[in-house]
Amino acid sequence: FPSRLPNVGTTIFTVMSALAAEHQAVNLGQGFPDFDCDPKLVDSVSTAMRQGLNQYPPMPGVAPLREAVASKIETLYGRTYNATTEITVTAGATQAILTAVLCCTGPGDEVIVLEPCYDSYVPNIELTGAKVVAVPLTPGSFRPDFDKIAAALSPKTRAIIINSPHNPSGTVWSPADMQRLEDLLAPTNVLLISDEVYEHMVYAPLRHESAARYPGLAARAFIVSSFGKTYHVTGWKIGYVAAPAHLMAEFRKVHQFNVFTVNTPMQQGLATYMQDPRPYLDLPAFYGAKRDLFRKGLEKTRFRLLPCEGTYFQCVSIDNLAIAERDLPEGEFCQWLTREVGVAAIPLSAFYRDGFDQKVIRFCFAKKEETLEAAMGRLAKL
Amino acid sequence: FPSRLPNVGTTIFTVMSALAAEHQAVNLGQGFPDFDCDPKLVDSVSTAMRQGLNQYPPMPGVAPLREAVASKIETLYGRTYNATTEITVTAGATQAILTAVLCCTGPGDEVIVLEPCYDSYVPNIELTGAKVVAVPLTPGSFRPDFDKIAAALSPKTRAIIINSPHNPSGTVWSPADMQRLEDLLAPTNVLLISDEVYEHMVYAPLRHESAARYPGLAARAFIVSSFGKTYHVTGWKIGYVAAPAHLMAEFRKVHQFNVFTVNTPMQQGLATYMQDPRPYLDLPAFYGAKRDLFRKGLEKTRFRLLPCEGTYFQCVSIDNLAIAERDLPEGEFCQWLTREVGVAAIPLSAFYRDGFDQKVIRFCFAKKEETLEAAMGRLAKL
Ligand SMILES: CSCCC(=O)C(=O)O
Ligand SMILES: CSCCC(=O)C(=O)O
Repeated sequence: FPSRLPNVGTTIFTVMSALAAEHQAVNLGQGFPDFDCDPKLVDSVSTAMRQGLNQYPPMPGVAPLREAVASKIETLYGRTYNATTEITVTAGATQAILTAVLCCTGPGDEVIVLEPCYDSYVPNIELTGAKVVAVPLTPGSFRPDFDKIAAALSPKTRAIIINSPHNPSGTVWSPADMQRLEDLLAPTNVLLISDEVYEHMVYAPLRHESAARYPGLAARAFIVSSFGKTYHVTGWKIGYVAAPAHLMAEFRKVHQFNVFTVNTPMQQGLATYMQDPRPYLDLPAFYGAKRDLFRKGLEKTRFRLLPCEGTYFQCVSIDNLAIAERDLPEGEFCQWLTREVGVAAIPLSAFYRDGFDQKVIRFCFAKKEETLEAAMGRLAKL
Repeated sequence: FPSRLPNVGTTIFTVMSALAAEHQAVNLGQGFPDFDCDPKLVDSVSTAMRQGLNQYPPMPGVAPLREAVASKIETLYGRTYNATTEITVTAGATQAILTAVLCCTGPGDEVIVLEPCYDSYVPNIELTGAKVVAVPLTPGSFRPDFDKIAAALSPKTRAIIINSPHNPSGTVWSPADMQRLEDLLAPTNVLLISDEVYEHMVYAPLRHESAARYPGLAARAFIVSSFGKTYHVTGWKIGYVAAPAHLMAEFRKVHQFNVFTVNTPMQQGLATYMQDPRPYLDLPAFYGAKRDLFRKGLEKTRFRLLPCEGTYFQCVSIDNLAIAERDLPEGEFCQWLTREVGVAAIPLSAFYRDGFDQKVIRFCFAKKEETLEAAMGRLAKL
């Protein structure tokens, strides 16, 4: 039978993690911490399981977790979501984005993505039969180019997917960026899917500009986030969506026939743990220290450091390296780096439909100090 | 924006569970146990979390769980699946079925379902843009009608979804049924999605006829099952799919961009727990005793009992009741029963696209003895 996703192979994250394991490389490719979560969080989940909270939760998620999320959004971003009708717990942010795309788009529609972008967006859109309209972020700076976005809007545009803090580049949208998007979309019916999974990893002096802060955006937005990234449990596969009730009603129609609902004890454990805001409030300091350490190490190499305003990713250009391998395509360079130098990274070309190659690769610094030291030691020899 | 699922409301299971809670009714509606899982299973998951197994697992699932599943299928059904390329762990069976449908069908295709059927199948197919071709099971007996299925096959038929043991009717397909399907599909390219989530709940003298036992079916089948149903943890939302490598490759393309992967410590805990086959081997005796108890109680009422060969559901006809309410539409009867008698059930009309009403309702007997006694006491007054 004809493949529904003929252009899709195995994700770059899986490929590079496997290669890293094979060559005992330090794995700075796939984005996940190599340290463990807070044991208190584990205890909360264990307690929920022992209390017998092991059967179906309500379809949109357990009430205490939805309430904790609504209250966090209100405190941080000043918008009130109704926990009953406007928050849904999802099986991770990836599932949330597919479900959002599925609930609002179909054949004949267009959906705008800003490249480079996370590798699930394009196949998600293709699965609905809608057309992907890829708009490049400004080369070099990775900032949104609103003239290009404006030119891409058409009467067929159903939605636009944005992502700040941005994976892979680490850029963070400014208030002016958000306002320009708000103005641009004001005369349209275009929906917004705002992927904010790195919301708690924005480094001073910047702050996270959630779509929730901008009424004209929030009114049309599915805001997506991730507990896995915030609480160092990427393997728990749990996230959430916030959206106005009329959008959430459509989201839930698809959600209930995709995963139906999400792991009960994990939800309950997270709800208990979220009572204390410190873990996410402390995150910029925690990851900021790792960022600074890693940047300092890389400054001693011939990698050219790009800015890192948010996320746990550091991008570098390889164009200044004094070795022949800098002329390899990024993908091959990353394989070579993994095999020969013993450090795995992700090529930015993996975030472009056409594999655009700008000699930039991404490292994940969500790692123990000793892991970062080991990687820096190996990279210093380049 | 136009709804992608205009005919979808809240699932009947959510509606009836909410109504049961509101009226303090005994909830025999939504299918889930009211008793807890084995504490050993909880301990296995807690141990995995404490061991730090909290980051992304491999995209298709952790190897020990895939191996445990492959070895179970081989032992029980005699077919060898390659754990690396032919088994994928999913965020429940519902997600598995959507992913299977998404990976193989699209606009212009037809997918056959046998009604009554689980309420996610039809919207799953509609989301792909394919056409739903609904073939009724034989009225009264709920057995497959192969002449009708043969007549529904067309050059556009991409897949057929079957479900044995069958929710809601509790029927179990015979070897002759499976062979007839195998013969019918032999000259075609039609794919099979075989929903076998109740595989371990088949009552003597019958046995489960997995599609895995029938080479001509297995070669074209996505076989879907559920750990939640088997191990009394419906809220964990974890299942699996077995399929030949060429089909699994397409399944994983969609899976990796739907949920990407599934909760690591839950997978690890289940893998450990599955080393002992007794929990699933003992299930027919465990649920068979509940079925017998519940049927004995209902025999004293004017409900007309339908056969229950498998699943944890017991269907009854209400046409013989000596009260006016038997003339209500099934849906209203179930609401009345919940409110006035204090026992929640599910109307079979919810499993038909057109709401076909045959005066049959479904009870779930996956309940503690005292819960079943309480329900039977209330029903006896009818
Ligand atoms: C789902 S694996 C990829 C993790 C991630 O978000 C990334 O590395 O970009
Ligand atoms: C996902 S809620 C429904 C549970 C179930 O399988 C049923 O009651 O039929």
